[in-house]
Amino acid sequence: MAEFDLILRGGTVVTEADTTRCDVGIRNGKIVALADDLGTAAAEVIDATGKWILPGGIDSHVHLSQPSGPGIKMADDFETGTRSAAFGGNTMVLPFCLQQKGQSLREALKHYHAEADGRCYTDVSFHLIISDPSEQLLGQELPALVQDGYTSFKVFMTYEDLRLSDLELLQVMDVGRSTGALVMVHAENHDAIRFLTERLEREGRTAPRHHATSRPIAVEREATHRAISLAEIVDVPVMIVHVSNREAIEEIRRGRQKGLKIFGETCPQYLVLTESDLDGLNMEGAKYVCSPPPRDQESQDACWQGIEDGTFDVYSSDHCPFRYEDAAGKLAPNGRTSFRWIPNGIPGIATRLPILFSEGVVKGRISPQRFVALTSTNHARAYGLYPRKGTIAIGADADIAIWDPARTVTITHDLLHDGCDYTPYEGMEITGWPITTIVRGVTVVLDGELVSNKPQGTYIPRELSEFVSRPVMLS
Amino acid sequence: MAEFDLILRGGTVVTEADTTRCDVGIRNGKIVALADDLGTAAAEVIDATGKWILPGGIDSHVHLSQPSGPGIKMADDFETGTRSAAFGGNTMVLPFCLQQKGQSLREALKHYHAEADGRCYTDVSFHLIISDPSEQLLGQELPALVQDGYTSFKVFMTYEDLRLSDLELLQVMDVGRSTGALVMVHAENHDAIRFLTERLEREGRTAPRHHATSRPIAVEREATHRAISLAEIVDVPVMIVHVSNREAIEEIRRGRQKGLKIFGETCPQYLVLTESDLDGLNMEGAKYVCSPPPRDQESQDACWQGIEDGTFDVYSSDHCPFRYEDAAGKLAPNGRTSFRWIPNGIPGIATRLPILFSEGVVKGRISPQRFVALTSTNHARAYGLYPRKGTIAIGADADIAIWDPARTVTITHDLLHDGCDYTPYEGMEITGWPITTIVRGVTVVLDGELVSNKPQGTYIPRELSEFVSRPVMLS
Amino acid sequence: MAEFDLILRGGTVVTEADTTRCDVGIRNGKIVALADDLGTAAAEVIDATGKWILPGGIDSHVHLSQPSGPGIKMADDFETGTRSAAFGGNTMVLPFCLQQKGQSLREALKHYHAEADGRCYTDVSFHLIISDPSEQLLGQELPALVQDGYTSFKVFMTYEDLRLSDLELLQVMDVGRSTGALVMVHAENHDAIRFLTERLEREGRTAPRHHATSRPIAVEREATHRAISLAEIVDVPVMIVHVSNREAIEEIRRGRQKGLKIFGETCPQYLVLTESDLDGLNMEGAKYVCSPPPRDQESQDACWQGIEDGTFDVYSSDHCPFRYEDAAGKLAPNGRTSFRWIPNGIPGIATRLPILFSEGVVKGRISPQRFVALTSTNHARAYGLYPRKGTIAIGADADIAIWDPARTVTITHDLLHDGCDYTPYEGMEITGWPITTIVRGVTVVLDGELVSNKPQGTYIPRELSEFVSRPVMLS
Amino acid sequence: MAEFDLILRGGTVVTEADTTRCDVGIRNGKIVALADDLGTAAAEVIDATGKWILPGGIDSHVHLSQPSGPGIKMADDFETGTRSAAFGGNTMVLPFCLQQKGQSLREALKHYHAEADGRCYTDVSFHLIISDPSEQLLGQELPALVQDGYTSFKVFMTYEDLRLSDLELLQVMDVGRSTGALVMVHAENHDAIRFLTERLEREGRTAPRHHATSRPIAVEREATHRAISLAEIVDVPVMIVHVSNREAIEEIRRGRQKGLKIFGETCPQYLVLTESDLDGLNMEGAKYVCSPPPRDQESQDACWQGIEDGTFDVYSSDHCPFRYEDAAGKLAPNGRTSFRWIPNGIPGIATRLPILFSEGVVKGRISPQRFVALTSTNHARAYGLYPRKGTIAIGADADIAIWDPARTVTITHDLLHDGCDYTPYEGMEITGWPITTIVRGVTVVLDGELVSNKPQGTYIPRELSEFVSRPVMLS
Repeated sequence: MAEFDLILRGGTVVTEADTTRCDVGIRNGKIVALADDLGTAAAEVIDATGKWILPGGIDSHVHLSQPSGPGIKMADDFETGTRSAAFGGNTMVLPFCLQQKGQSLREALKHYHAEADGRCYTDVSFHLIISDPSEQLLGQELPALVQDGYTSFKVFMTYEDLRLSDLELLQVMDVGRSTGALVMVHAENHDAIRFLTERLEREGRTAPRHHATSRPIAVEREATHRAISLAEIVDVPVMIVHVSNREAIEEIRRGRQKGLKIFGETCPQYLVLTESDLDGLNMEGAKYVCSPPPRDQESQDACWQGIEDGTFDVYSSDHCPFRYEDAAGKLAPNGRTSFRWIPNGIPGIATRLPILFSEGVVKGRISPQRFVALTSTNHARAYGLYPRKGTIAIGADADIAIWDPARTVTITHDLLHDGCDYTPYEGMEITGWPITTIVRGVTVVLDGELVSNKPQGTYIPRELSEFVSRPVMLS
Repeated sequence: MAEFDLILRGGTVVTEADTTRCDVGIRNGKIVALADDLGTAAAEVIDATGKWILPGGIDSHVHLSQPSGPGIKMADDFETGTRSAAFGGNTMVLPFCLQQKGQSLREALKHYHAEADGRCYTDVSFHLIISDPSEQLLGQELPALVQDGYTSFKVFMTYEDLRLSDLELLQVMDVGRSTGALVMVHAENHDAIRFLTERLEREGRTAPRHHATSRPIAVEREATHRAISLAEIVDVPVMIVHVSNREAIEEIRRGRQKGLKIFGETCPQYLVLTESDLDGLNMEGAKYVCSPPPRDQESQDACWQGIEDGTFDVYSSDHCPFRYEDAAGKLAPNGRTSFRWIPNGIPGIATRLPILFSEGVVKGRISPQRFVALTSTNHARAYGLYPRKGTIAIGADADIAIWDPARTVTITHDLLHDGCDYTPYEGMEITGWPITTIVRGVTVVLDGELVSNKPQGTYIPRELSEFVSRPVMLS
Repeated sequence: MAEFDLILRGGTVVTEADTTRCDVGIRNGKIVALADDLGTAAAEVIDATGKWILPGGIDSHVHLSQPSGPGIKMADDFETGTRSAAFGGNTMVLPFCLQQKGQSLREALKHYHAEADGRCYTDVSFHLIISDPSEQLLGQELPALVQDGYTSFKVFMTYEDLRLSDLELLQVMDVGRSTGALVMVHAENHDAIRFLTERLEREGRTAPRHHATSRPIAVEREATHRAISLAEIVDVPVMIVHVSNREAIEEIRRGRQKGLKIFGETCPQYLVLTESDLDGLNMEGAKYVCSPPPRDQESQDACWQGIEDGTFDVYSSDHCPFRYEDAAGKLAPNGRTSFRWIPNGIPGIATRLPILFSEGVVKGRISPQRFVALTSTNHARAYGLYPRKGTIAIGADADIAIWDPARTVTITHDLLHDGCDYTPYEGMEITGWPITTIVRGVTVVLDGELVSNKPQGTYIPRELSEFVSRPVMLS
Repeated sequence: MAEFDLILRGGTVVTEADTTRCDVGIRNGKIVALADDLGTAAAEVIDATGKWILPGGIDSHVHLSQPSGPGIKMADDFETGTRSAAFGGNTMVLPFCLQQKGQSLREALKHYHAEADGRCYTDVSFHLIISDPSEQLLGQELPALVQDGYTSFKVFMTYEDLRLSDLELLQVMDVGRSTGALVMVHAENHDAIRFLTERLEREGRTAPRHHATSRPIAVEREATHRAISLAEIVDVPVMIVHVSNREAIEEIRRGRQKGLKIFGETCPQYLVLTESDLDGLNMEGAKYVCSPPPRDQESQDACWQGIEDGTFDVYSSDHCPFRYEDAAGKLAPNGRTSFRWIPNGIPGIATRLPILFSEGVVKGRISPQRFVALTSTNHARAYGLYPRKGTIAIGADADIAIWDPARTVTITHDLLHDGCDYTPYEGMEITGWPITTIVRGVTVVLDGELVSNKPQGTYIPRELSEFVSRPVMLS
């Protein structure tokens, strides 16, 4: 066999399927050999004895450098965001390219590419947020962009400037159908939120916790059922993102049992936070304001069940960071203190994997294999990156996270290396931590230190989603 | 006992609960005695030996004299409509008062009252169709109208000029909540119909049967789930009208199983027609165009099951008559032949009861008691007329239909005495027919002949719905 | 009109359907007139002003004078049992005739008739408990008994001396199918109870509360599903008696949704007791030992929901009385203190109606009409007594309970006039009480005093069940 | 790297997770290397260019040399059975060791080991059929046997000589719980089959097709629900074997949704046969008699859905061969022609994999990965063989089947090399065929020829099932 650039020796390789004691041989950024003993004939050898070698995390739901309303600024750009991602064991992230009203998506992409180029520590690719589905966009621009490797769209059913009408949702889904792109849906009923928000404000109930009151479960369940129905009418798969509760989960399961290709995503905030976190002195609750909001213990249990039983295919961060001590962030933006004005979103790109590892694998809820599927392999399958990304197999990109499964860590914000000024998970005790991150054969983080002298992540154009063509699986 | 104005002798009285051989004594328009033998001491005695004495039918879903678009004219006014109703065994109908955009409901009511006054053969009352829920309407006019006895609203989720946004639906439901009025919902997703209609027209598929293709079951199920969700958010009962299929039925059942007060109505067209009736030479299918459309055999079976198992509380006609041989009616209105332009609605006010009697009672699907509940008692309960209407009990209005349970009739249009020029049920064989109709003690139809020399029906202001306060029943 | 023997003046008549202010005229033990004013021309006039006039309660699940194991004696015979029933507003009870192994049912009936003759304060009829289904019994005796008016069987899936094998259950159901008799099933898995009981005894967990531990919900749900499956295989209706929890309820609902005729009964103990009542000093918990056991709050809620939503057709007492302070009763029978030896059953014949009236009607969970259906009309329909019994209509037996809907009573054992020495409902606060009980026109209890100088109740042979032929109703 | 005994060059390796173009290096019967290019330095090199390299099939439901009633003889012993298995791409089979009444399992095992020793072409291990659960067996023998590597039991709910009572089922499950052994259940209600069989025979309906009539779906669904309930009461996982229809599948899904560890198996006969195959001239239908019987198209669709959606974890043959032209086989055994006497079971060990490959993978219903999981990996996981068996990973046994995914074959009996005289799948067109089978590095079948000069398969003691400890997955 030819020589290797890098050999990982003595570790335990975990994939979606197997847990194997073997060495990993890497050449030209690819995995080229797995064997009981590859020796040490390589430019670089990392001793992984006692460690777990996992496919690097892929975070397919990330907001970076995104405009978020007048006077509001996102806390992470591509440099800080992907740096934090790499520290958290990720080798690829999929942020959104947001079309603004009247803007072409090509134009928007130009901007996001410029922001990302040369500044990423992990590989990146973009989902397209469609906020203004003109005939030209639907008929020409989108099909061409799918051809070019932008193979997933995101649509919103809420937020004044983003939400589409049912007709527009149908039209975008129809492009999904004709092109094979996967449509991601933020499912909450805008009008119901507005109705409840106005009532709460009339009643003077404006504290952060009423963010949750204004978006009860029925608001999310209704929109989930509607999104699934529209997908059924168009006959196209959809991914329901950031699912937070049992009722929405049941809509997904009902859809699948009819044979529809409905996929679901959940996030750490729905597994370990609850709406009581939105209480707290003054605006402290603002640190936990995201949409849908964290809910109650029963909802948490339901989301864990969905993680365990296969209802959820992907587990993402929905990283959407705003600084707390910052007029442009969470705290009374523009001087307005009603929950209505708090930017929706919380950071979590670095903590996503450790939280699921510790709460899921270490506590025995899921196997290491399922952890890999939920955090990496299924993201690659869902978004057209597999088998190049998401697994440890001959021919795949050498995107790897080496984990110390026994390391115990108390989460503090300084461990996360992001651009935010807090973490909603401050103080959480974690067992299992990613210590080394390798992107296409290049070591970015080694034993918890940034060793890459400059960002070498690259943009990856994508194939069509494997989920679009695969049979309906109830898991 | 004091003397009677009218005695019905020798018949079998059927109510929602009982079937009893007894005489009925009537005085001052009221039922005042039921007994084994009341003798003959009365101004009028009708021999009902061998006949069934039922509470007169109440048809709570009827369109009369309603504007239906430019150049289109409804085939029945209050005179022909209520005359046909009386021939069909009904003693009361509830047409709609339609608010036009910009119009006040008081103003609209003035018009409908004027149309109805002195021209009705049965009693009448009005539901209020809300098409323009201004702040003034919601905050002042509607609450006052409920006080005045207009205790039910209807809202539409489709039709360009009628449909409300989700926010408007929530606002109307909120008035339902604060006033106790019952909200009726026409549940179909407007945007989906538009999306499918445009596609069908692009494909040149414009024949009447594509009316059904443009409104598949998912379109109705989605809107049904949405209406129920909005009602859940507001915490208010709703009546889902003209339900046509199993999936929509299941949404209603799911709502009830959560403890929500969700009620359901179905109509003859969903029990005995199917979408294949929309086929036919040229525009012949237009005779069966209504919304939702009749569907397939499985849907028919599901609607029958809902009739039998108690999911449906009320069975109405949704009488909405347009003449076929008439440029202002079904046949290519304004010269436009695409299914999109055919007025939605079919006649059925006189055939409603015989169809359910023959197909339901005579064929053994339902008991005579359930027939009475579905056609009369539950309408009275749902719309604030009970116990004045809807039963044969001491103190109730003497609204009575005498049936010959054995009479066999072939339906032909000339039997129906309406203003239309066809019936979708032409040629149907019926066993059981209403022969005599008595409204508040006055005989209107006797042995199949109109005997009332002038229309004596009156407008009845209504109490609040009993359904709003009753516990959730799965039947 | 001819004269009356008895007139009830000024009351409010409540039936399954209606609530009507009217007088009731009775002649020859029958109801012959209902009218706004019947005057006072009668041998007897009872002033019912401000009172409710209801069909007398029918208790279709009652154990009287039944052998219950060596050295154990039931606390009520037909005299004390029916006396207590009459005080509780009942006009008819249906005890069981228990076939002992090897015995013919004719022989058993002779015994029970002898016990009952001339000693009953209410009317009575017998269900047949089949414990030994020989070929002769199945092929000849049972069909003849159904002809003679014994139109319901009961079978057990547990109790060493009573339980039938699945094959025997199928054979008895098959006789139900060929004769039209209704089969009642006590559904608990015998082997599972034995398995758990032996384990509990090995562990020394023998206190009364472990009676409940030995019969968890899965034990009842399994047998319920099995009984329904066997009925499905034979194609015959069944009544699942004394249902205690949500999972068993769901089996019934699933059966109905398939179109099977599955009926359900629940009892007061599942609405107001829980298994924590089986705790208590020493053997105090024995007072609450019945099978299935009372369960938890969630099960109570589910049973209430079944009462409200129509899943349960009948509400019975399962009166099965044993004295507490009596070696032949609850307290360490034969000196054996393990829960295994406590006779299963609790008294409740007099308290059944007041508990449901107070907790159901007064607290707004059910309407007065539904109360009548659950306590009287549906029993009459289910067991071949309707329309002779169970309603207030012309021609029906004058079986009537007059209620004071406002009377408040604290339950104490001395109010109940039974043969037991305690009531499990001691101290319960009740609103609404039956004050006068009339059986076929004869006043038995008047204003809370026994006025019948001797028991005048009679045995009533029955028609076939109306439930066997009626369409499947989800309520 | 050290040298290899065998290199598979140029093939495409398919595992439960991945499809990878790579070479496979084998040494000492183990897989020791996977790489882009392993060269040719090995004792043996097989060119697999254009072929698929799969983990060898594991058939975990196989009957060989089992006594089957007086005068009846199974058509396969260990030699012919495992030979046929190897031709069908299998590298391991798990036949049953049947305890006869009164026999100890050690004694029974001695017999089966003697039958198997030196005569197997694949590896083997034994499930223990428990027909006589004495106290000694439950308390001592079974726990010791689990320790020795017999880590799965099978119990029957039907067949006169095999079926256990519910109490015995509970007791065996309880040993499963205390030892970690996995319990497999044949779920059909014995009494119901007997009831229906006797009725059919009384009616003279004795042709083979009435085998199916005597075992309707409700018979299987009931027993499935009961088995799951007993497992719930004991709190132990169970595997429901040979599931044939939607209703039984739904019981499994309901169990899982409660969080119970319920696993399901289906077989080729439920995917491609129907009960109409039991028709046919004279006794021709006997060739398709197995239990549960093949059912209708809707059941087939449901089983396919269970294969696709993850409800079924394993897909086995239930190979249970009897010769047709043989008085000791299918055809009127002992001269008795009623369906009751036809031995239950059909052959299928060689056809199992090609049928699923052709109908599942080639027709696009399942991915190659899911094929591997259903036919090999999940069997290894379920029965304590993983990761030694069931995957292609470093350190695993070199148990491999090389497939030609494009070969088309018409099934004829002579291709199967078993001891039977027919195949129920005669004439079926197949795409994709296993051409080479390697067991622990030894080539048994090469290009469709038996090349092993003597049987080298060995007995494999097993670890505890991974399914017992894994979280509940809905797939």
